[in-house]
Amino acid sequence: MASLIPVSDPADPRLADYVRLRDVNLRKSLEAEHGLFVAEGEKVIRRAVGAGHPVRSLLTSPRWTGPLADLLDGVDAPAYLVDDATMESITGFQVHRGALASLERLPLPSVDAVLATARRVVLCEDIVDHTNVGAIYRCAAALGIDAIVLSPRCADPLYRRAVKVSMGAVFAIPYARMTNWHDDLGKLRAAGFTLLALTPDQTVTPLDEVPIGDRAALMLGSEGDGLSSHWLDEADERVCIPMSAQAMANGVDSLNVTAAAAIACHALMR
Amino acid sequence: MASLIPVSDPADPRLADYVRLRDVNLRKSLEAEHGLFVAEGEKVIRRAVGAGHPVRSLLTSPRWTGPLADLLDGVDAPAYLVDDATMESITGFQVHRGALASLERLPLPSVDAVLATARRVVLCEDIVDHTNVGAIYRCAAALGIDAIVLSPRCADPLYRRAVKVSMGAVFAIPYARMTNWHDDLGKLRAAGFTLLALTPDQTVTPLDEVPIGDRAALMLGSEGDGLSSHWLDEADERVCIPMSAQAMANGVDSLNVTAAAAIACHALMR
Repeated sequence: MASLIPVSDPADPRLADYVRLRDVNLRKSLEAEHGLFVAEGEKVIRRAVGAGHPVRSLLTSPRWTGPLADLLDGVDAPAYLVDDATMESITGFQVHRGALASLERLPLPSVDAVLATARRVVLCEDIVDHTNVGAIYRCAAALGIDAIVLSPRCADPLYRRAVKVSMGAVFAIPYARMTNWHDDLGKLRAAGFTLLALTPDQTVTPLDEVPIGDRAALMLGSEGDGLSSHWLDEADERVCIPMSAQAMANGVDSLNVTAAAAIACHALMR
Repeated sequence: MASLIPVSDPADPRLADYVRLRDVNLRKSLEAEHGLFVAEGEKVIRRAVGAGHPVRSLLTSPRWTGPLADLLDGVDAPAYLVDDATMESITGFQVHRGALASLERLPLPSVDAVLATARRVVLCEDIVDHTNVGAIYRCAAALGIDAIVLSPRCADPLYRRAVKVSMGAVFAIPYARMTNWHDDLGKLRAAGFTLLALTPDQTVTPLDEVPIGDRAALMLGSEGDGLSSHWLDEADERVCIPMSAQAMANGVDSLNVTAAAAIACHALMR
């Protein structure tokens, strides 16, 4: 059961886990140093706890202790109570979902470990936007993708915004982060995966027409430049989502990465 | 050719079209009153101009007049030049894309007019989030949907955020707004459209398995509640995107509306 601790000073060091949640650079270094991440809202916090992440603390306001009684009962950690203005001055934004939690990160499994039992995998190369990462996780999990593998520089799925947009799917789908961008695609090939590189290039095979083998990995590139030429070269096949010729003539010549990921994951699961 | 007019006072009435661009309620009344909308960034402004929207004015900063010379040359309207701090104090945010334009709205075609030549249509019921509206337009346009029909209360595709997220696709795909939520589905039926209601209900037919007739309309519901029972009842068929049973057991039980729209538009174009 959480111990309810009123705090009035925004500078209280016990609230340090929650400072400036929109400051990506600060959060990167702070979260790495302390091995923590922040989840927002009862539903997502419950999923994080359910996935085995120990709770460091909760941050909420006195008026939420009633609605969140079940959550508070089930968590063995301090719950700091602050008023809404203090909450905003600490975090840097208006928290609408009642509660924040600071949780401990867990060691990620290796690429080989997540591949061991997977048949359908999404590979993300250097996706930089946390909203996109969260949306890809939600979509991949909902459609039944077995695992996600991230390139070394791909944005952090446990950054608050990614966790929130994923609706907690970051806790529902196994994932690993490559350590070697240049060589680690070899681990997928060694595990028998066909590497399918998704590209806007309309001259390659439409994804719906490509035979999907027993084990297949869908490669998604970064928002701006798409997949690197190295990853494109390493792919077994380049695949596309057919676009409207008229739209392309009108300058609407691409889907955003999350729309493309949704269509491609759906095609991969057919 | 635009006339370049330096302005230093953020309260200058000539800049009134650009005030508080993130204040949705203010913008709704201001834009309705003056019949205007705001586009952001050279590419999107060009598309708005290309779609025939007269330019009321441009707002940019002196350092952008060089990079935007082509745009400024081609527009016959005042271009107000302000420094970055003034730009932010007027608009309420940091404008990264160099220029804003205030443009005149044009009368929308009627529902019957946009249906006349369309075969594949997306119907949006009460989508409230401008980001989602913009993403649906981008996706629908890119995949070759012929037209979009909005319910009377659906969010405005010409709100700045929707225009931006759509990458200008709001100017590339014909659309109309219903005047009668209760009865206007009859116009689609009268025009020979099969009405397909997309729902998260996993007991209905997967969209991929439904025969798509000569004319088909995909009905998308609002973010929170989905389609109203009235629209569901009026549909010819309820269709779903199959979700992973394991994900649903883990509480990942839905796609967001833009991911669902992407998959469904792709299926509709098969």
